[in-house]
Amino acid sequence: MRVSELVSRSGVPLATVKYYLREGLLMPGEATSATQARYGDEHLDRLALIKALSNAGLAIPRIRTILHLIEDPTGSRFELLGDVIAQLPPYLPESDDPAPDEYPRAKRVLEKLGQIYDPGFVAVAQLEQALAAAENAGIPMTDERLEAYGDHVRGIAEVDIRLMPRGSAAEQVKYVVLGTILYEPVIAALRRLAHQDFTAHAYRRSTDHPDRQEPS
Amino acid sequence: MRVSELVSRSGVPLATVKYYLREGLLMPGEATSATQARYGDEHLDRLALIKALSNAGLAIPRIRTILHLIEDPTGSRFELLGDVIAQLPPYLPESDDPAPDEYPRAKRVLEKLGQIYDPGFVAVAQLEQALAAAENAGIPMTDERLEAYGDHVRGIAEVDIRLMPRGSAAEQVKYVVLGTILYEPVIAALRRLAHQDFTAHAYRRSTDHPDRQEPS
Repeated sequence: MRVSELVSRSGVPLATVKYYLREGLLMPGEATSATQARYGDEHLDRLALIKALSNAGLAIPRIRTILHLIEDPTGSRFELLGDVIAQLPPYLPESDDPAPDEYPRAKRVLEKLGQIYDPGFVAVAQLEQALAAAENAGIPMTDERLEAYGDHVRGIAEVDIRLMPRGSAAEQVKYVVLGTILYEPVIAALRRLAHQDFTAHAYRRSTDHPDRQEPS
Repeated sequence: MRVSELVSRSGVPLATVKYYLREGLLMPGEATSATQARYGDEHLDRLALIKALSNAGLAIPRIRTILHLIEDPTGSRFELLGDVIAQLPPYLPESDDPAPDEYPRAKRVLEKLGQIYDPGFVAVAQLEQALAAAENAGIPMTDERLEAYGDHVRGIAEVDIRLMPRGSAAEQVKYVVLGTILYEPVIAALRRLAHQDFTAHAYRRSTDHPDRQEPS
């Protein structure tokens, strides 16, 4: 297809397509003349991916890193996925390698859950920061909460992994990146709506039965 | 306590304390002279709450609205909690009242889950936006994913509600606000770490037993 069709089918404006070409995020089309090139489905796929990452708030250098990892996956699948996830928000202040006891809250939680983790993985620092914020606000992670959260988050992660495409490393990286950032807001919204549902049921019970007596 | 002690115990700088006093976010202390005032634990609590909201990225007008709802809770508990949650990010573009079919993806999901919801609740619009983004990126919410997510998010929300303090509306509002925004990043980090744990187990299985044969 010509660039005009690429623009209309992708919904990405021409100036942005040109910018992605210049920045090397979008691979060049096949030149058909000095001023024209032909584009294919791989260009549409790439634009959809860049758009999704950009809409999720990722800056161009981080998108470039992810695309590079997709094009040229190195190391084990385990390391690759860790490298990719490290590009996703929330971002933490740069620091030197953590001392072994730098993330005490996160480590306590992960050990209680019995999980394998890489202490240098950015999500450990994210977890520490989030746990410290909750603790400082007076609602620390208690064992009761952790037990429920641990089981249920594991259940969610299990289906995420089960639905991972069986294909190439590139396809899997794409799935992991998008599934991580795009489903976090889905989970957050579902949680808020589940709170509303529980509250609504409690409210209905309290108003539908004004004469209801507690057993004495 | 004097303002100097309030500063040192809260960890909030003097200039910021004065700013919160001027803006009416922090209630005035008890005047002990023309230039001095005495502060109590309620001031420390209030500063901790403002700090938590501010660290979570809330702007002053939204913090003011939440504090106002805590001080003067009106309407049912159900409405109150909806009003409070509407102040929390992510924020959506302003729009007129939604048409009945404006959130088709969110409504399909909520109906499948059999949940009670207020169609004007901001989390419905958040869910729609998040589901549309996932769909556009090629990983739509399938029934299989929804079944697992629905059950597990409900399990998380159930413990959130179970751990809600039994006390005043003000205490409950505070718990709901902080529990919503401070535990979202905990859940996100735990999910990423659960993915890593699953990937690590799969990786270990594949490398620990290089000679392992699949049953033929």
